[in-house]
Amino acid sequence: LRLLTLARDLRRRKARERQHLFVSEGLRAVEELLRDSLSIEGALATPQLETSPRGIALLQSLEARGVQVVRVSDADFASAAETESPQGILAIARIPAHTLEDVAKQGLRRLLVLDAVQDPGNVGTILRTAAALSVTATIALPGTVDLWNAKVVRSAMGAHFHHLTLSSTWDELDSFRVLHHVAIWGADAAGEPVDAVRAPERLALVVGNEGNGLAPSSRGHIERLVALPIASSVDSLNVAVATGIFLYLLRR
Amino acid sequence: LRLLTLARDLRRRKARERQHLFVSEGLRAVEELLRDSLSIEGALATPQLETSPRGIALLQSLEARGVQVVRVSDADFASAAETESPQGILAIARIPAHTLEDVAKQGLRRLLVLDAVQDPGNVGTILRTAAALSVTATIALPGTVDLWNAKVVRSAMGAHFHHLTLSSTWDELDSFRVLHHVAIWGADAAGEPVDAVRAPERLALVVGNEGNGLAPSSRGHIERLVALPIASSVDSLNVAVATGIFLYLLRR
Repeated sequence: LRLLTLARDLRRRKARERQHLFVSEGLRAVEELLRDSLSIEGALATPQLETSPRGIALLQSLEARGVQVVRVSDADFASAAETESPQGILAIARIPAHTLEDVAKQGLRRLLVLDAVQDPGNVGTILRTAAALSVTATIALPGTVDLWNAKVVRSAMGAHFHHLTLSSTWDELDSFRVLHHVAIWGADAAGEPVDAVRAPERLALVVGNEGNGLAPSSRGHIERLVALPIASSVDSLNVAVATGIFLYLLRR
Repeated sequence: LRLLTLARDLRRRKARERQHLFVSEGLRAVEELLRDSLSIEGALATPQLETSPRGIALLQSLEARGVQVVRVSDADFASAAETESPQGILAIARIPAHTLEDVAKQGLRRLLVLDAVQDPGNVGTILRTAAALSVTATIALPGTVDLWNAKVVRSAMGAHFHHLTLSSTWDELDSFRVLHHVAIWGADAAGEPVDAVRAPERLALVVGNEGNGLAPSSRGHIERLVALPIASSVDSLNVAVATGIFLYLLRR
């Protein structure tokens, strides 16, 4: 039962950071994991998994890849799983270690910077969007939910496994932007309408917290603010929707 | 305890449809409700509400508006509430009765049609986006989650209270499009890139189910399919994000 204990432990961010491991839950997320090259440490499955052809196929794929699959009871599984209806399957895999220098090597065009974005569903959706719109990497600043939280992983639908993600700080980003000539823009309702601006070759877009927007301490690091014009009867767009529109308009 | 029984009953779609009432849960959603003109039938509050200045202010606003606020225990409240952490407050209000003819009277430019979109969080976010991007109305086809489901209402953050929403069918929409010269386009990965098309004066955009896209039975009613180009490594965008990008690009 080493894998069960490990999965339970990995519910804590500190454990994920110390062990460089994360948990991917549900049929879709584990299927996506198998499509990519991350190292898989093992999986937990309940009898529920084998009640569907899709579950049986997934089990066979895991075993064909040489992944150890431990059968556990529903109660044990529930004690480890973090997402809603994890469908009787979770896998433990290695978090890829990426640095800002890796980002530079990827032919950097667009970066997305998350400044204390906190809802796991929003952050997962944002990662899925960033991968779909060919953003080079997504960078989490302090205060952002852990990108390897099981709920984030699940709602990103596999984006983590091929899209570059990492955590960083303004100190590191400031050095990086100078070295690699990256413009840093922020999304803010008080900014210039995004349609009126011309995006530079290399651009990092910073998006802020759901309720509070960009952190006051981030503003000094941002060269230009851009906005999406919206109806006055509505306070704001959802952060994942706004990020999607910005990334689409600013893509290259 | 008539209001408690009523709130419990309104968890069912059939009850909401028969009584033309819905439930709005949580501080933000009830605050937004008070900003608009919908008729409020009453509210339930727990002692938790009065533990914050914001909760106390909301209670005062409800009472100033002459709304009956019934104090209930946490257990009774939980038996009626449908969303996560409803913060000790829910209000029951009247569903506005809108028809397609009301839509025509609003100076119709853009319509959004939901074709079996099922996740309440997605649909709420979509309504919030449609209101923000000045869509004239959002129309739910059969198979779509009830727009007045408490989870949809909560994640729409007040959009329901000023954005026109209604349920309809292809039969009604087909007559309406002829009468009012509305083009009907659908969002589909196999469509033309949306950047390459010019949007007509009056346009209804149809977006489909999270997993399956547009219903096969809808395709015959749609004149043109449009797509957002995305990276081949990603299956699709989240439906709320994709809808946001389309509505922004096609706005007028």
